[in-house]
Order: sequence, then structure tokens, then C-alpha cells
Amino acid sequence: MDDSGFAKLAEARVAIVGLGLMGGSLALALAGRCREIIGVETVPAPRAAALERGLIHRTADFDSALAAADLVVLATPVRTILTQLSSLSQLSFDVSRLTLLDLGSTKLQITRAMEQLPAAFDPLGGHPMCGKEISGLGNADADLYRGKTFVLCPLERTTPHALALAHELVSAIGARPLHLDAEAHDRYAAAISHLPYTVSVALMRAVMTNDSEGVWQLAASGFRDTSRLAASDLTMMTDTLLTNRSAILNALAQFKSELDSLTAAIDSGDPDVIRSALESAQRKRSDMFK
Amino acid sequence: MDDSGFAKLAEARVAIVGLGLMGGSLALALAGRCREIIGVETVPAPRAAALERGLIHRTADFDSALAAADLVVLATPVRTILTQLSSLSQLSFDVSRLTLLDLGSTKLQITRAMEQLPAAFDPLGGHPMCGKEISGLGNADADLYRGKTFVLCPLERTTPHALALAHELVSAIGARPLHLDAEAHDRYAAAISHLPYTVSVALMRAVMTNDSEGVWQLAASGFRDTSRLAASDLTMMTDTLLTNRSAILNALAQFKSELDSLTAAIDSGDPDVIRSALESAQRKRSDMFK
Repeated sequence: MDDSGFAKLAEARVAIVGLGLMGGSLALALAGRCREIIGVETVPAPRAAALERGLIHRTADFDSALAAADLVVLATPVRTILTQLSSLSQLSFDVSRLTLLDLGSTKLQITRAMEQLPAAFDPLGGHPMCGKEISGLGNADADLYRGKTFVLCPLERTTPHALALAHELVSAIGARPLHLDAEAHDRYAAAISHLPYTVSVALMRAVMTNDSEGVWQLAASGFRDTSRLAASDLTMMTDTLLTNRSAILNALAQFKSELDSLTAAIDSGDPDVIRSALESAQRKRSDMFK
Repeated sequence: MDDSGFAKLAEARVAIVGLGLMGGSLALALAGRCREIIGVETVPAPRAAALERGLIHRTADFDSALAAADLVVLATPVRTILTQLSSLSQLSFDVSRLTLLDLGSTKLQITRAMEQLPAAFDPLGGHPMCGKEISGLGNADADLYRGKTFVLCPLERTTPHALALAHELVSAIGARPLHLDAEAHDRYAAAISHLPYTVSVALMRAVMTNDSEGVWQLAASGFRDTSRLAASDLTMMTDTLLTNRSAILNALAQFKSELDSLTAAIDSGDPDVIRSALESAQRKRSDMFK
């Protein structure tokens, strides 16, 4: 036992599956906080780079990592996580009791798949509310998780041990744990993350249809920020939109209804109507990020 | 004559009308670059603060500033600029030849009003492509214009002297001049600035209609950036939406059509369809701000 308050984590061998932005940043943030960090990555270049840069102690294939680790963190896009969970359900060898956490952007399909896992697995869903529009191990950052909300979705079967270990991991990397059920997570994430992404892509596409290249000369910080999410990793976002479809379609319908109201206000040409259409959003946003 | 390359500016008495974020930042950026900076501001607090902080040499009312200045910069919201231009057309006293530049967010209505000015005025339109979501003199910043595009819309009547003086001002504050006709400016600005603003407001409104306060707990950097413009100054944006209505309505129609395509792709549940709907925007945005 150590006196850091992270006793379980300090004893744990942690396998990180997927050494991209999220997994690589997790490895950096966990340095010195656990017994061993094992990296699992099918692409040779990031696998070699993670070892060379000292982010991980060693590499392993998925099955060997399962056999060696006390905690496995799935840090791949959602559909890859679903495939991995499906393969775990048909595991041909025994593992000793193993805590399993994922970092996927949607939680309902993943936690449902976790419910089907063999008893040796002690699973829970996770989603750190952070990221960058630039992906890959090369952009990994030890401070990516610092000060950020880290959603945890424990299942009924999740043991107090697994939950405590996950809490230690979240705290050790400087994040704040937030418990949500998977359905609420997916509904909230649809509105506050997947909708902004979709809107950002539509915005890029709308400007790209402009008949003139001259329009880009006027791009300033406002456009830079509203379009930033459109640069997000395609595989991650395709998987996210696929696995949270109904919540995202609901959020989009809500957004379109608000946009129609705003359009009508602008079309009215009445300054009072326009101003009052803008006012509540202005007040709320000004109060949010002071 | 000095040897700074800003000979006309160095000799000029510059009146800045409106000491908010834009006018205050201009005063800061012009410090030591012109003969005198005269501040015109109807609100007592920023007027006193600008004097106290040494941003301006002295204050004056609008008429006195017109009589004293070689260059007048209108740094107020668009409808205030239009009112000011209208009052100049009915001026009851003589001014000596005077360069008149504005910083308004839309240019067509302003340059049309400028065309009606008495011959003593030597006007041109201007629009620096920068700003902040926090307004007011207290947020003024000497570097606000640095490295930014500064659109200039000369009229047929604009003299080479006025244009040269405007160029010196733009260069002196570190910005890059870009000549556009007012119609092109308003069309481009609708797509790349006023549309993102409107979308940002609609996004805030959509999340605000969510039935739970819990949704805000998941707000991260993606939402922060896509919603930032919604916090923009209400008067400035009301005036902007009012005076660029048809171009903004066109941009909104284009945006909605792109959003409908994306919605259909998400609804398809087909990963290839989704990915290809996201791809061109991802590539363009990744190339834009490297």
C-alpha cells in the first residue's frame, strides 16, 4: 500500500488498448502511478513510438494483455470497442478477475455489450469529456484530462472494487468523475457534443459551396472556433454518429426548430424581434465560461 | 515627414467615434502613430476611462471632432453608423476636407449612405475581421488587429489620399488590407461570420431547451468553441443581422440544405454514407488552420 490515496491503482498492471490521442494521453498521465503500463496497438508505427518515447513499459497483443493486466482500458473508436467486447464474450482462455473500462464517445451500446461479458470481467463504461481536433499519438498530452469531467457508467454488475479503481484512475489523471446512466449520457452528449460536431461540419460544407474562393479570406477567429470540430477524426466521429443515432437525430430536430425561429426573426427585419431572439442565448453563454 | 512609412498618419488628428472594444483597441494600437487621438463617446464611464488610461489625448463631442480631425473613424454598431452618416448629410457647419472610415460589420448600406455625403467628406468603408465575444473598452487590446484581415471598400469618390491614409492606418495597427466591393464583402461575411454567429445562437438555444440541467455538466472545449459567438454583443449583432438580411438568409438556406444532407446520412445508419458526408469538410478544415 502506498499513501498516495491511489492504493489500488499503484498495484495495478494497466493495459491501454489503442495508442491514439486518448490512449497515448492516458499513458502519459498515468506515468509513475501504476505498477505497469502495457500498450496494445495494432498499427506498428504508434506502437513502436509509444515504447520508444517511454509512454508504456511494454507492448502486448490483446489476448496477452488480458492475461497480464488488472485493468484494461479500451481507448479505440466505439465500433472497435464493440468488436473487442464481442470477442471477449467468446474468449477461449481464462482470465483472472479483470476490471474493464472504456473511453468511447457513446455509452448505451457499449454498456449493453458489457452486460454480456463472462463473469471474469468486471466492466464499467467511461467517457472523458475532452479531446482535440488533431488525433493520433503524436498529439498525446499528459494534461489532456486535467480538470475535465470524466463520465463513469457503472453497470449493476460492476463491483465496488472496479468502481474504486476507476475512480483512482480518473483522479490520478486530474479529471473529475461524474456518474451517469448510459441513456442520460448519450442524450446529453448528443446535445452538447455530437450536435455541435454535426453543425460544425454543415457549416464547413455550406461555406465550401460558396461560388468564390474569396470567402475564405475573411475567415477569422469566429469561423475558426465554430468550424474546429469539423476537423475531428473521421473514424471516431463516424462511429459516434452511428451508435448514438436516435439521440442525435432528436438533437438535430431541436436545433433545426431553433434555427427556423431565428431565421424567422431575421426575416422579420424588426430589431426588437431579432434582439429578443438572441438575448437568452447571449446571457446563458456569457454566464457559462467566465 | 517622418521615415516610418506612415507619413500621412503621423500628421493626422484622428477622431475615434465609439470607445468600445473596437474603438478602444484602435486607440491603443495607434498610440504614438498619429498627431492626436480624439475620443468621441456618449457614455460617460468609458469616455472618462479612455482619458484616464491615456488611450486618447482628449475627448470631444461629435461635431467638434469633425471640425478638428483629419481622419474620423466610426467604431460604433452599424445602425449607429448609419444614423451618424445621415446626420453628416445635414451638417449645419463647414468642415475642411476629412477622411471618413468606419469599422462596421456590414458594408453595403454604409457605403451607399457614404455616397450621399457632402463633398467635404472623403469616405470609405472598412471592416477589420477580428473581435471578441466580450465587448466594451475594458476588453480593449492593443493587439486585437495584429495579423488580421482589414477589409477596405473604397467608393468611386474616395480619393487616393483617403485610401493611402486608410492603408497607413491598417498597416500601423498590424493588419492586412484587403480591397473588396461592398456587395462581395456582405455576401462573404454572411457565410463566414454572420452564419456561424446565427448557428452558434441556435446551438445554445437547442441545448437550453433540454429538459435537464445535467446536460451542461458535459460541456467541454468543443461546445465552448462552437457556442462562443453566441455571447457576442447584442446591439452589434442585431444591427449586423438587420443590415445584411438577404445575404444572411441565403447563407442560412445553404446551411440548412447541408444540414439536411448530413441528417439523412446519419439517419441512413450506413457507416460509408456517414463517413463520406463528413470527409470533405474534415479535409478542408484540417488544411485551413494548420
